[in-house]
Amino acid sequence: MSRRDFLSKSGLLASASYPAMIALGLLKSAPAHAFNLEKKGNGKKVIILGAGLAGLASAYELTKLGYECTILEARERTGGRCWSIKNGSSHLEHDKPLVSAKFDEGLYFNAGPSRIPHNHELTLHYCKELGVPIQVYNNVNESTYFFAEGKGALSNKKVRNREIHNDIRGYMAEMLSKTMDSNLDSALTKEDGQKIIEYLMAEGGLDVDKLYKASARRGYIESPGAGNKPGIITDPYKLADIIKSGLMDPDFYNVAEYTYELQMTMFQAVGGMDKIAQAFEKKVAPMLKLNAEVLAIDNTTEGVKIIYKDKTGEHELQGDLCICTLPLPVLSNVKNNFSSEVNRAIDFIEYNKTGKIGLQFKRRFWEEDEHIYGGITHTNNELTQIFYPSYDYLSKKGILIGYYNFNEKAALVSDLSYAEREKLALQKGRLIHPQYDKEFESSLSVSWHKTKYSMGGWAVYNTETRKNSYPAMLKPDGNIYFAGEHLTYLNAWMAGALESARSVVTDIHARTTESRLKYPTQTKG
Amino acid sequence: MSRRDFLSKSGLLASASYPAMIALGLLKSAPAHAFNLEKKGNGKKVIILGAGLAGLASAYELTKLGYECTILEARERTGGRCWSIKNGSSHLEHDKPLVSAKFDEGLYFNAGPSRIPHNHELTLHYCKELGVPIQVYNNVNESTYFFAEGKGALSNKKVRNREIHNDIRGYMAEMLSKTMDSNLDSALTKEDGQKIIEYLMAEGGLDVDKLYKASARRGYIESPGAGNKPGIITDPYKLADIIKSGLMDPDFYNVAEYTYELQMTMFQAVGGMDKIAQAFEKKVAPMLKLNAEVLAIDNTTEGVKIIYKDKTGEHELQGDLCICTLPLPVLSNVKNNFSSEVNRAIDFIEYNKTGKIGLQFKRRFWEEDEHIYGGITHTNNELTQIFYPSYDYLSKKGILIGYYNFNEKAALVSDLSYAEREKLALQKGRLIHPQYDKEFESSLSVSWHKTKYSMGGWAVYNTETRKNSYPAMLKPDGNIYFAGEHLTYLNAWMAGALESARSVVTDIHARTTESRLKYPTQTKG
Repeated sequence: MSRRDFLSKSGLLASASYPAMIALGLLKSAPAHAFNLEKKGNGKKVIILGAGLAGLASAYELTKLGYECTILEARERTGGRCWSIKNGSSHLEHDKPLVSAKFDEGLYFNAGPSRIPHNHELTLHYCKELGVPIQVYNNVNESTYFFAEGKGALSNKKVRNREIHNDIRGYMAEMLSKTMDSNLDSALTKEDGQKIIEYLMAEGGLDVDKLYKASARRGYIESPGAGNKPGIITDPYKLADIIKSGLMDPDFYNVAEYTYELQMTMFQAVGGMDKIAQAFEKKVAPMLKLNAEVLAIDNTTEGVKIIYKDKTGEHELQGDLCICTLPLPVLSNVKNNFSSEVNRAIDFIEYNKTGKIGLQFKRRFWEEDEHIYGGITHTNNELTQIFYPSYDYLSKKGILIGYYNFNEKAALVSDLSYAEREKLALQKGRLIHPQYDKEFESSLSVSWHKTKYSMGGWAVYNTETRKNSYPAMLKPDGNIYFAGEHLTYLNAWMAGALESARSVVTDIHARTTESRLKYPTQTKG
Repeated sequence: MSRRDFLSKSGLLASASYPAMIALGLLKSAPAHAFNLEKKGNGKKVIILGAGLAGLASAYELTKLGYECTILEARERTGGRCWSIKNGSSHLEHDKPLVSAKFDEGLYFNAGPSRIPHNHELTLHYCKELGVPIQVYNNVNESTYFFAEGKGALSNKKVRNREIHNDIRGYMAEMLSKTMDSNLDSALTKEDGQKIIEYLMAEGGLDVDKLYKASARRGYIESPGAGNKPGIITDPYKLADIIKSGLMDPDFYNVAEYTYELQMTMFQAVGGMDKIAQAFEKKVAPMLKLNAEVLAIDNTTEGVKIIYKDKTGEHELQGDLCICTLPLPVLSNVKNNFSSEVNRAIDFIEYNKTGKIGLQFKRRFWEEDEHIYGGITHTNNELTQIFYPSYDYLSKKGILIGYYNFNEKAALVSDLSYAEREKLALQKGRLIHPQYDKEFESSLSVSWHKTKYSMGGWAVYNTETRKNSYPAMLKPDGNIYFAGEHLTYLNAWMAGALESARSVVTDIHARTTESRLKYPTQTKG
């Protein structure tokens, strides 16, 4: 009997730790991930509540480390808010009947997250590791519109982003260049001042007299072309008109584009953002229970006990540890024996109200007629934003996100029926795109704060809740860990769910093995 | 014998004009394009010189109209400057030996045009009509660098675009907000002034005291994450340092991003820009003569006579009309009997000097280590720009455009050997990306003003040449028409070549049929 036969027969080989195998001379040296496998078979059972990105990523990473996971998911699909609505997708809001999307094959819109910042390394890391192809999400587009309904001289006029951006840049540069000489900071030399003026002239597109007049940057009445077509440029709007129409207000002037997360380059998963969830799902399919709604979560002396119901009735599941990724507005209605500190945090941490509507059109008129390829139109009315699709450019049909609104506007819209929401989106949308009338085909709308098993857009902290509620949920309550975008400083982002999952997996692994995980170092922003 | 049989046997059906067929009752009414087909068989032979985009598009459109075309192309490929260099692509500069690219399969760089503006409708129109898939070209990327070699406090430091953009925005907003009250334009009310200040605070990311201090917009030392990671933000650079390192100079501060053509959204053809040329080529393949170098162009009393040489010797080709798309520095060395006015224009219109180098790397370190996905790094040294590829994100290998320079810098680099250019690109590039040392594999460089059959980047007009030389070439010289980007206000752009082709085709059709073409109306910018 060879040493290998002995080991195999005695079952040692199957479960042998790498160090043991090395000691026995079966392996020359520890492979790169030996530290993980060494811990395999520590027998720990982890119950994961929720198969959104946090739950899926937790299960995926824990499985790599040799834990036994079970994922309970109330919906009949994974992904949670990471959801791309396509033909046949069904949607349930708590005060409305079930609806189902009727879209053409191949068309979709991302009801939840629709953008991956280039600096969210972990999201991109998983796209790469799981083989999810990505493409540019075109967040910045100078060709989209500002539309001020019923306000000022530019009221109800489609004004291109490029027009307002360049007019404001021009006027501000003009104003500052006029006062530069007399107002130069003491830390700057006269020569510095001259450089700033040169910069302002370039930045603002000023003429030799340092005045902002007209600029090709804001577009043409007639485009330049062949022969005798130098192009005819447009006159700027008056600054007073821009101001009085509210186009320098936060509704419009999109400083959001400057924020770290929304700076170009941005990405999306090809074919819908939920391809990311689906890629995780493939890896953890055997441990996944769909249609399993959690009713109670209890710490026990030995571990955890979960009560859930599925189509066949109520069930009890026991485990050593639990990771609870349920959104807090959902969790607050689940029976539990959490500490009062945790229960207070669950009640106090707020979630936002937000909604989107997907509108399918027969024809990509925004591309064909208006040269808008991706990007966002901003309005001061209920629509707030229109998102143009960043995929399948130049193809025949497409789905616009007809509104993407928040807070009061989202609350107002969410109280409407699906038919009324569609009507509103079309009514307001056709003020900008009269093509709506002729080209519209079908819609589906989602109000996240009314959506069963989500009940909110994402966690929104204020100074008070970040200080007094947040910390309570960062540590385990007995054997129960909490994870999700709500337990990060990356609220609303997929990266939050993923970072939180890794953080909790690291904590669990440290507790069960006394060795902290070292994920590959993330580089700096 | 039926009427159809009679027509068919007599050959009438095959060549019958639509009006004739309608008259005979064979067609109920004229189809949409009847006006084109009606002119079919007018027997005009058009010789097209050059199979760049202008020549290819001319042949494509003329063929639709029933002309008989022959295209003479000196190179062994079509596309001219619309050229994507991939493995095996060979390149010839007039003072250097032939070189051939050694790149991995699937990798390429666009040696010529690499960007399609979203407002260049005609380019996108042909992509759609010819079935060329497009993808976003990521021209704006806040994550790329400014690199000032040997200048000021920020000398030889990799400074992110986002740092400089947000610092300058912040400082300018701070300066202007300080002086707003005292310098308000008379057309503005005090309330307008208050709105501007609110705008400046948002635009610049100012604090409550209207000061620019630090901002998450410029990035983090430690990114925000799960648990106790709010993110650690960075301090701004001093304005004086930014100025003295030249980062507000035109070398860097990229107002180019504001220009109409370079505003996002931008596109490229999937798999290389020359897919557009190749799609045209497929349509006109039977009329294409490659390796056919034009030696002489003559107006004759009956039409035109072209002398060209190919591998078998010199040949003469006669036609009714000619479209000459040869770049002017090439055309100036071709024997002709043009008017002296045209020959003066050919000599006087200038072309720029420009060059690019493609550098293949084993690993996409700019993505993996530095989160740069597409976009452009700007330098004040010979490199001028580094272009990161806007395709195959997250894949293994990639080709950077290691420099893209113009004028004096391009002239300097063009005098170097291929090996010396590579050495320079690597030497200067590793100051920014030290990974160059370990990851570099191979290069190919192109200096367009030395490239055989191009001899220049693109036409660059000054007021004088636009006024006095340009008009001479807009009208035919006898039976010879001129086309190309150089005969438009869209110099350097593919749209120029295409608009020029349509313009010349329209002129020719008007001359031979007395009916002016009506291409579908282009909408406004």
